[in-house]
Amino acid sequence: MSENQELNLVVLLGSLRKQSFHAAVAKSLQSVAPANTNITLLGSVGDIPHYNADVQADGFPAPVLEMAGAIKSADGVIVVTPEYNYSVPGVLKNALDWLSRLPDTPFAGKPVSLISGSPGPIAGARAQYHLRQIMVFLDALVFTKPEVMIGGINTKVDTEAGSITDEQTKAFINGHLTAFGSFVRRVSL
Amino acid sequence: MSENQELNLVVLLGSLRKQSFHAAVAKSLQSVAPANTNITLLGSVGDIPHYNADVQADGFPAPVLEMAGAIKSADGVIVVTPEYNYSVPGVLKNALDWLSRLPDTPFAGKPVSLISGSPGPIAGARAQYHLRQIMVFLDALVFTKPEVMIGGINTKVDTEAGSITDEQTKAFINGHLTAFGSFVRRVSL
Amino acid sequence: MSENQELNLVVLLGSLRKQSFHAAVAKSLQSVAPANTNITLLGSVGDIPHYNADVQADGFPAPVLEMAGAIKSADGVIVVTPEYNYSVPGVLKNALDWLSRLPDTPFAGKPVSLISGSPGPIAGARAQYHLRQIMVFLDALVFTKPEVMIGGINTKVDTEAGSITDEQTKAFINGHLTAFGSFVRRVSL
Amino acid sequence: MSENQELNLVVLLGSLRKQSFHAAVAKSLQSVAPANTNITLLGSVGDIPHYNADVQADGFPAPVLEMAGAIKSADGVIVVTPEYNYSVPGVLKNALDWLSRLPDTPFAGKPVSLISGSPGPIAGARAQYHLRQIMVFLDALVFTKPEVMIGGINTKVDTEAGSITDEQTKAFINGHLTAFGSFVRRVSL
Repeated sequence: MSENQELNLVVLLGSLRKQSFHAAVAKSLQSVAPANTNITLLGSVGDIPHYNADVQADGFPAPVLEMAGAIKSADGVIVVTPEYNYSVPGVLKNALDWLSRLPDTPFAGKPVSLISGSPGPIAGARAQYHLRQIMVFLDALVFTKPEVMIGGINTKVDTEAGSITDEQTKAFINGHLTAFGSFVRRVSL
Repeated sequence: MSENQELNLVVLLGSLRKQSFHAAVAKSLQSVAPANTNITLLGSVGDIPHYNADVQADGFPAPVLEMAGAIKSADGVIVVTPEYNYSVPGVLKNALDWLSRLPDTPFAGKPVSLISGSPGPIAGARAQYHLRQIMVFLDALVFTKPEVMIGGINTKVDTEAGSITDEQTKAFINGHLTAFGSFVRRVSL
Repeated sequence: MSENQELNLVVLLGSLRKQSFHAAVAKSLQSVAPANTNITLLGSVGDIPHYNADVQADGFPAPVLEMAGAIKSADGVIVVTPEYNYSVPGVLKNALDWLSRLPDTPFAGKPVSLISGSPGPIAGARAQYHLRQIMVFLDALVFTKPEVMIGGINTKVDTEAGSITDEQTKAFINGHLTAFGSFVRRVSL
Repeated sequence: MSENQELNLVVLLGSLRKQSFHAAVAKSLQSVAPANTNITLLGSVGDIPHYNADVQADGFPAPVLEMAGAIKSADGVIVVTPEYNYSVPGVLKNALDWLSRLPDTPFAGKPVSLISGSPGPIAGARAQYHLRQIMVFLDALVFTKPEVMIGGINTKVDTEAGSITDEQTKAFINGHLTAFGSFVRRVSL
């Protein structure tokens, strides 16, 4: 890919509540992205049933197939997620469990960026390293640096408007997405 | 607790399919347990809805409260789980996410044993270390050694009968439960 | 152990430089500890040679034997360490590698507390979870909560005096050591 | 890079003893590598002193500078390492700690492959995921699949000859190196 080629990125959101801090970040990514970058939200992980191999035997649920198709068509995936209990939210992991069972798994070779946050200072770091280990199995190409971990996230977003209000955070995410865009263009065939 | 005091342990199962290898292990634990040990299965993690703070605001779902009550009354918890994508199954993590939100969290100070397995040789090891990190947040007392990781689990259980067929595995789990029992008696107030 | 029994704790320090922030924390622990708690620094991990099984075959180095003896005699171990490259410092891990090879490994069943810090906000969290995994092999009983992760450590210690200058940090570590003391008394035979 | 361009890879070995199983694997990599692949061993991590910022202030030790130069000139790095105490050997981590302090860190953007093994079945998996987390800080591009974890390594190598004796292991590593070579050519600028 050439350095200015348009990129289509999709966002996988790890939380479900309406006033989620992370939903606000996810919705605002397009507005803080660099040029030539289109960012679209994937469907909700809440629409995907509990993973059960007996259910899978009857066919993959429609929301799983839809999400898989959107990931496949995209140039890269941005995971935006809170940390629950020092790890990945169960609802997000459950979606990944379904996606991983597809014969033609959508994450294979796909560039992935991770964004987490928390009201406290550790900012979801623990969830990110668990996600990185999960992504090894999925054979994804997880971007390294700069990592985005938003401490004090509750003071930096407007959950009603679905936007980031902290200018430093906006600039940092713009820098992250710019570097991730270069990575995507570098590693894509 | 004195060394022969009766123990009541509960089992948290991480998978949902009917012919689950891990369900077979879970069901057989009572039969391979040492004396003075009562082992009961908790309700299915499949009965617990996706964690959503908006749902929580309307009240904890009944299966969460029931599971929490059973864990509280027990002397210890045995988690029996497969590994999905190098980590904890989403459905299991989702149950833990709900349990952790209770004002009086049932895992605090509770002795916990981990049992995993897989058809391959790594035997769920990766899921166990992620679970251990999760259990730090839950403030549980996770037992260390001997660790139970059942490689080639598909050849060692009878999923119809719900039993372990491999004698060495039975003996090893008996040893694990005996050591875990001593640990429970040692650390319980 | 009764609740007021005197405890003898030893400190394992993970860094070597003279003006180390973590050395300042380690040296100050006695002064912030609760009553009936004696805290002594172990020898330096810098005195222990690179682990090499060929060297071991000729006999364990004296500083390893000395450190092992001191850990065995103690009621618990406090590890105070920086994070290097998102993990445990090599010099600290090297000391643990030697200690683990002893026929009568000193960490087995030993209560362990972890204290980390960093100038940034993540505060050594990543090193702590790696240490916890290592401690599973060593069969140690690692204390859970409250965890001590000192963000902005460079502004909270006096490296010349070897002391903590931040009152909130002193109070937090006092609370940690008090809770750890209760844990040690609870789990010790 | 074109698909057949010659690759120069260097090997970082994590153990020191002369009859090391992993040394045998490291020495044999050239003989099992695909065409157009030159594989050279880096200097021993045993020649690198304990990391100490006070020592660094006086200048980086020669073996660190030499290793860094060799990594920089290479197209990729293969880490071959045992697992000690469920993590990375201290001696290997210590070498990485030094390399990471260089102003122009040699791992940044560098493709890295991981090879581990153990006499038991878990085969060093735990060390690999800790290494992957470390490599995030180092900003390296760690190859994903197929992962090489050699169970029963003591029965699959000749430590005197420095060779792999098991044909399946040879073929598997050949496949790994072939896929890693494609990855290196894909991501290198």
